[in-house]
Amino acid sequence: MKILIKNALILTVNQQNEVLGNADIAIDNGCLQAIGKVSDNFEADKVLDATKQIALPGLVNAHTHIPMALFRNYADDLPFWPWLLEKIKPAEDHLSAEHVCWGAKLGVLELIQSGVTCFSDMYFYMGEVANVVKESGIRACLSGVLLEVDDLGPTFMKEAIDFHDSWHGKADGRINAFFGPHSMYLCGPEYLRETTAEARKRKTGIHIHLAESRQEVADSNEKYGKSPVQHLADLGIFECLTAAAHCVHVSSEDIELLAKHKVNVINNPTSNMKLANGFAPVDALLTRGVNVALGTDGSASNNNVNLFEEIHLAALVNKAVNEDAESIPAQQVLRMATINGAKALGLENEIGSLEVGKRADLILLDASKPHYFPHHNPVSSIAYSAQAADVSTVLVNGKVLMENYELKTIDVEETVREAERMAFDLVSRAKES
Amino acid sequence: MKILIKNALILTVNQQNEVLGNADIAIDNGCLQAIGKVSDNFEADKVLDATKQIALPGLVNAHTHIPMALFRNYADDLPFWPWLLEKIKPAEDHLSAEHVCWGAKLGVLELIQSGVTCFSDMYFYMGEVANVVKESGIRACLSGVLLEVDDLGPTFMKEAIDFHDSWHGKADGRINAFFGPHSMYLCGPEYLRETTAEARKRKTGIHIHLAESRQEVADSNEKYGKSPVQHLADLGIFECLTAAAHCVHVSSEDIELLAKHKVNVINNPTSNMKLANGFAPVDALLTRGVNVALGTDGSASNNNVNLFEEIHLAALVNKAVNEDAESIPAQQVLRMATINGAKALGLENEIGSLEVGKRADLILLDASKPHYFPHHNPVSSIAYSAQAADVSTVLVNGKVLMENYELKTIDVEETVREAERMAFDLVSRAKES
Repeated sequence: MKILIKNALILTVNQQNEVLGNADIAIDNGCLQAIGKVSDNFEADKVLDATKQIALPGLVNAHTHIPMALFRNYADDLPFWPWLLEKIKPAEDHLSAEHVCWGAKLGVLELIQSGVTCFSDMYFYMGEVANVVKESGIRACLSGVLLEVDDLGPTFMKEAIDFHDSWHGKADGRINAFFGPHSMYLCGPEYLRETTAEARKRKTGIHIHLAESRQEVADSNEKYGKSPVQHLADLGIFECLTAAAHCVHVSSEDIELLAKHKVNVINNPTSNMKLANGFAPVDALLTRGVNVALGTDGSASNNNVNLFEEIHLAALVNKAVNEDAESIPAQQVLRMATINGAKALGLENEIGSLEVGKRADLILLDASKPHYFPHHNPVSSIAYSAQAADVSTVLVNGKVLMENYELKTIDVEETVREAERMAFDLVSRAKES
Repeated sequence: MKILIKNALILTVNQQNEVLGNADIAIDNGCLQAIGKVSDNFEADKVLDATKQIALPGLVNAHTHIPMALFRNYADDLPFWPWLLEKIKPAEDHLSAEHVCWGAKLGVLELIQSGVTCFSDMYFYMGEVANVVKESGIRACLSGVLLEVDDLGPTFMKEAIDFHDSWHGKADGRINAFFGPHSMYLCGPEYLRETTAEARKRKTGIHIHLAESRQEVADSNEKYGKSPVQHLADLGIFECLTAAAHCVHVSSEDIELLAKHKVNVINNPTSNMKLANGFAPVDALLTRGVNVALGTDGSASNNNVNLFEEIHLAALVNKAVNEDAESIPAQQVLRMATINGAKALGLENEIGSLEVGKRADLILLDASKPHYFPHHNPVSSIAYSAQAADVSTVLVNGKVLMENYELKTIDVEETVREAERMAFDLVSRAKES
């Protein structure tokens, strides 16, 4: 399938952050074949007119729990422990594969609608999520969660290994399987070492929560006499490609360690605020050369998976925290949402920028909407003005998943109806038990 | 004109925060005549089917500079003084009535599209803004800005008085004129006293920037030996109804003064972050009983006038600052965006909630979109999930300004085109001079 996108304003997010006006994109066999000027000899099977639209690399949501769409607006304005133990966990205790399937479908539908072409997930029943990824056409890095609770550690380990071996590289290469040890507080040292060994054996990465709350740091210091970051470094986890979500409460020594081990930090500004954890020191991380990407976290602590909101917040909150208006400028936050996310997942040679030879994962934004006028600066418009609802067209791997706001691979009505039925079922089971 | 809205989920935002399922609204002569159950005898001229929609009071954007839509994405990631002196002011120096007219039209168009039915504005050429308000059908509280720069203090004073006397109560009562002394650092004590006297004589209110930056507080302490809040209190300004924008850098003594004088504080979270001023202590203000409303500030420091973003941020940022997840819960932020805004403008008996006898200023949100599912809690959905793009229908004073996403009173294409032309003209004049 050859696709030609015509007359776009292209934000390439390449090394030079080139912006190309009134430019075309040729896509062949899922790859970007030409960008800017396309040869007249390119015979497209399909032409997309992108006049008045901005083309940019598909966004990468590098930390989420996508089936938690089921718990959107279910447990709000609560501290972390009552949120988890009184609301989320009692419902999750009744999760089945069917619940996860529909929750994942609702979440993936939202991701595509809001311009995310690749997401990194950690949750239960990851095979269900993988099926949704396969069928929907989106790209994902998937991690079956690993937990040592209720003696289930070995069960989760077996599931994670089976998941990896069944799904890694599948769905036309759109699925990568990582290992997802939940955190250093729900996984003991030996379990983390074992997880790392399994990941290394398979040359894959680790997706973990890290230094999210003050409590985690205090408990780690008490139990191990060191910070969570130091603890993971000492266990050798960072010898794998690691995507560490949150990193809110990190010291300057921790930041040195993260930089030294090339750990990728996933900033989740909405979730960090909603659960009252605070603000990740993104400036300090960037200054030390740490790769910082963006995530929404799950819809139970956000309450959507709209990465444009995280883009705005990533550009805004650190300015206020540091009282420095030049902190995290527009171009930097656009890189965080695209190429940095790709790098955090080990996919920077395949996706994350619009460059010839990369996979054709890209989105079009309708810049004819009033909030794009006057067109002074398209990069600023992404960082500060754009809305998820402006995403008109989404391609992954050269396939059109949404065209002019119409989803091609997911039945919206069925999905929202069944996801709601599943969610209400879980809540009523939680209340009964 | 009699309008019947049918089958809505209604968030009344009345004293009890009542939520009514599958309910109707009868509108007669611009007023809410019945809410919940409407008599079968009500003979509507027009029926709006609100099935799967959420009806709520129109949002109040209580601090903006609406013509600054012209400067959207024009001056970003800059500290306040270079932002103002090197970018904004050189362009503003060339402002004409025509520039302001089209900038205001673009801004008002965005306000209506994003569910704002009433805004409070401060800028130059306020008569142009008033004309746009009159023609567009929106409601506004308008303040011609008062500044003592370049010996123009008396000119601005005369203009503000003329503006008030020409426009207060006009456009079917949709326009209220306030006095808008810019701030205690751009207006001297005598000028502020004079402004207050003019406002008191006309029994109207004051719209002012207050305690926005650390610099303002430091300069005030140095010049007057007291904080900006104390300075204004001593000048007697607060004897008028006062809407004070920002109040980021206020001490506990300042908060006591604001509470004692019933000053209304307008929180502008995006602008406060973008210009690196910080976070307003909203919890402390609320605890002392201060009325806190929301604003976007102008599009040069935001970069849009999307109040849903401020709703999300108002709910989120103070949770992180205070490390308290229960701070500013969903219902409170919904009140800030509606009835508190009305109160800040002295309009709480007319608008801000859906109650019989009030003016029919209301909006419908399309809750059939995926990010509203599952429908666990409609108030949480407004605070955390809803998007401005979900606003389908807007009524002000019982008149439909937008129906099913179609604007009825503003020509979108002409407005965006002319506003862009005006903006580019200003920028080129600024560069030439």
